[in-house]
Amino acid sequence: VSTRAGIVVTGTEVLTGRVSDRNGPWLADRLRELGVDLAFTAIVADRPGDMAAALRFMAEEGMDIVLTSGGLGPTADDLTAEVVGSFQKREMVLDDALVDRITEIVKPLMTRWPNLDVEAIHVGTRKQATIPAGATVLEPVGTAPGLVVGPPTEGGGPTVIVLPGPPRELQPMWAHAVQSGALRSALKDATEYRQRMLRLFGIPESEIAETLRVAEREGVRLEDLEITTCLKRGEVEVVTRYEPGADRAYEAFVKVVKERHSDTLFSEDGSTVDEQVAALLRGEASAAGASREPGLAGEPDAALTPHPARSIATAESCTGGMLVARLTELAGSSEYVNGGIVAYSNEVKVSQAGVDPRLIERHGAVSGEVAESLADGASSRLDADVGVGVTGVAGPGGGSAEKPVGLVWLSVATPDGGHLTRSVNLPGGRADVRDRATTVAMHLIRRALVGS
Amino acid sequence: VSTRAGIVVTGTEVLTGRVSDRNGPWLADRLRELGVDLAFTAIVADRPGDMAAALRFMAEEGMDIVLTSGGLGPTADDLTAEVVGSFQKREMVLDDALVDRITEIVKPLMTRWPNLDVEAIHVGTRKQATIPAGATVLEPVGTAPGLVVGPPTEGGGPTVIVLPGPPRELQPMWAHAVQSGALRSALKDATEYRQRMLRLFGIPESEIAETLRVAEREGVRLEDLEITTCLKRGEVEVVTRYEPGADRAYEAFVKVVKERHSDTLFSEDGSTVDEQVAALLRGEASAAGASREPGLAGEPDAALTPHPARSIATAESCTGGMLVARLTELAGSSEYVNGGIVAYSNEVKVSQAGVDPRLIERHGAVSGEVAESLADGASSRLDADVGVGVTGVAGPGGGSAEKPVGLVWLSVATPDGGHLTRSVNLPGGRADVRDRATTVAMHLIRRALVGS
Repeated sequence: VSTRAGIVVTGTEVLTGRVSDRNGPWLADRLRELGVDLAFTAIVADRPGDMAAALRFMAEEGMDIVLTSGGLGPTADDLTAEVVGSFQKREMVLDDALVDRITEIVKPLMTRWPNLDVEAIHVGTRKQATIPAGATVLEPVGTAPGLVVGPPTEGGGPTVIVLPGPPRELQPMWAHAVQSGALRSALKDATEYRQRMLRLFGIPESEIAETLRVAEREGVRLEDLEITTCLKRGEVEVVTRYEPGADRAYEAFVKVVKERHSDTLFSEDGSTVDEQVAALLRGEASAAGASREPGLAGEPDAALTPHPARSIATAESCTGGMLVARLTELAGSSEYVNGGIVAYSNEVKVSQAGVDPRLIERHGAVSGEVAESLADGASSRLDADVGVGVTGVAGPGGGSAEKPVGLVWLSVATPDGGHLTRSVNLPGGRADVRDRATTVAMHLIRRALVGS
Repeated sequence: VSTRAGIVVTGTEVLTGRVSDRNGPWLADRLRELGVDLAFTAIVADRPGDMAAALRFMAEEGMDIVLTSGGLGPTADDLTAEVVGSFQKREMVLDDALVDRITEIVKPLMTRWPNLDVEAIHVGTRKQATIPAGATVLEPVGTAPGLVVGPPTEGGGPTVIVLPGPPRELQPMWAHAVQSGALRSALKDATEYRQRMLRLFGIPESEIAETLRVAEREGVRLEDLEITTCLKRGEVEVVTRYEPGADRAYEAFVKVVKERHSDTLFSEDGSTVDEQVAALLRGEASAAGASREPGLAGEPDAALTPHPARSIATAESCTGGMLVARLTELAGSSEYVNGGIVAYSNEVKVSQAGVDPRLIERHGAVSGEVAESLADGASSRLDADVGVGVTGVAGPGGGSAEKPVGLVWLSVATPDGGHLTRSVNLPGGRADVRDRATTVAMHLIRRALVGS
């Protein structure tokens, strides 16, 4: 029997969608590392009755631990500590030492915002230091302390771990929680799980469903594997979770996937295309994930041959900077990203990216010719080894019968003077088209770098 | 008694955080428009037992309707229709006419992916056309039909609206569901609510808590208003929900906020800074949200005087294209965004944005001087009325005692030759610093445009 956990995310602003929840997914990853099985995430408003109902549900469904996030702030609508205290049948008590520690923390804030209302701060501090009797305090990262609150009697229900809402407070605090004795005892029955991920690009999800049926027919013990597939920004992710004894079943399953999808499988180790592109640009070819180049099945193992380090620059139209923003997301990207040009108007395409205006006149701004010229302009103007050009119709306006919304041309100029140029017709609205085009560009860069 | 609703989001990939849930927040907005009170969102794995438990919870807590999203795909792990059928005590039946309609829909797919396994498609189609007896079918937008499944007996529990997972299928389908008789009768008791939003920039959330106490002391009937505050990317959002009779209480509350926060309140109508910047660049000053310019309390109502249309261009370093990507998010932005330069390396700052290398040498790349020079370079090189420069230390490396991680300099060059230049010290990791710096830049652009 594995340890089961539930997450209760509190906050009307999360429930109503004004803030997206980053804590649930992050905590889900941490629980998995600990071998804990996440069964439910509930999002509830800042209403004590609804919060209490969610906690009762988690207890009734047999959760061993419940994590809460949010509702620890200094304002009156932050009620989590009180609701959890009542759920665990504990009185609320003021922790004087905690008042002093929080007071120390907020001091610099009071110099930073000189017009702050001092009385408001004191009221908030006392509220944050009022905790269920007997709870273990997790030291504040921001101003809010976290809590580990055990059940009223041993074995009488889940241990509740109360964490703050802001991710940059919650994440460091989690390390403390894991080390605390109270949490360790709740986790004592956790069994180890393995989780592995395959990533494929450019096929529909139904193909994977068929591959599962093929694997079953070929005798792969799928009953020992918990396989889920999902389509995410045009990539199919196949995640498999299993107990250590099922290693061989997983290997047999991967073998079937490789046989059927050698041309679209790009990652066997969970690495993202972003990580693979970064590794290729750094010249770290061995970190490039897939063991061979999609599309070149049977050829020598291209990804394992050494690659030189390369610098990169972009010239984007429809993606409006999203590609260079994505390339610079990873720490250390300044080592290989020189920069980019966002050529939204045709004038900027000509003046900044050096596109010949006659090309635009003859073929239109959305064309393979202009995409290649943008790629060349990016590499020459920004003095980079590799240039990338993207031009398309993001919509909702600007489409025509010949060039509909969703048509995007992409080109990668490689150091040997060649181009890898493609067009795609992307579904969805403006945000989808821009987002998908950025992903397609990442895969085109990867393919060009593996091949160059 | 208002109509209460719950949302059950299914999918192991959502629960484990590999896909972020966009449906819950979107459905929350739609429910609010209908006067329906969303009480809970539950995220569950693709396990029938857990899904059934979430449905039972919603029924026990007295939900009148439950919306589900996801789990309608063609693969074997998509179980929602079956679980909902069993929950409503209905047999599963194959709808032959629906098989034919889905077959028509997937035909084009089969020409697009010529190597597709035809048998896999047929199996999936029959699975998707097997539905609970008596359910109302919502016509597929993708390949999956939605369902409206009533309780086994009148008043015997919630009506369940079964919707597909992909947002671009779910959203158009919702319109059908609202029109269907089955959903209308479940909604018959809905009472109208109003919801209004104030947005402030540049103060801590605790200040709003104090403002609530002040309003209470001044006799504002806060008990008639459901007020929630949250800090979102550096902006404080104050959302108030109330029944129509409480209009005057809301107006009295807004008056207190305006008195105390005239310098930081930038939106009284829920408009975002993005929308305000777009309106100002288009020359639609009246759409600019706040009734006066923060920081200029007592002066004539600047936002209501007409403004000329302006074009804009950016030169970014640490934000790596996120600012120009954000400026081009809105449809029609090509009318006023000329483009941008992402000057990640110093060489590109000099060659593309025209920054004097001696400025970099003397003051460092992260300095007010270089931010102003980037702003000037953006406007002159890209021939725009307004130029924006951003340069900072996004981290995790590159910080020093004098210029720590989080230090960002921003400058807006206005058509009169002036600059609005600021530095900020932003908390958090690399992603936080880049994201916050982008928001600060949006507010600086707004301020410069209102003042120019």
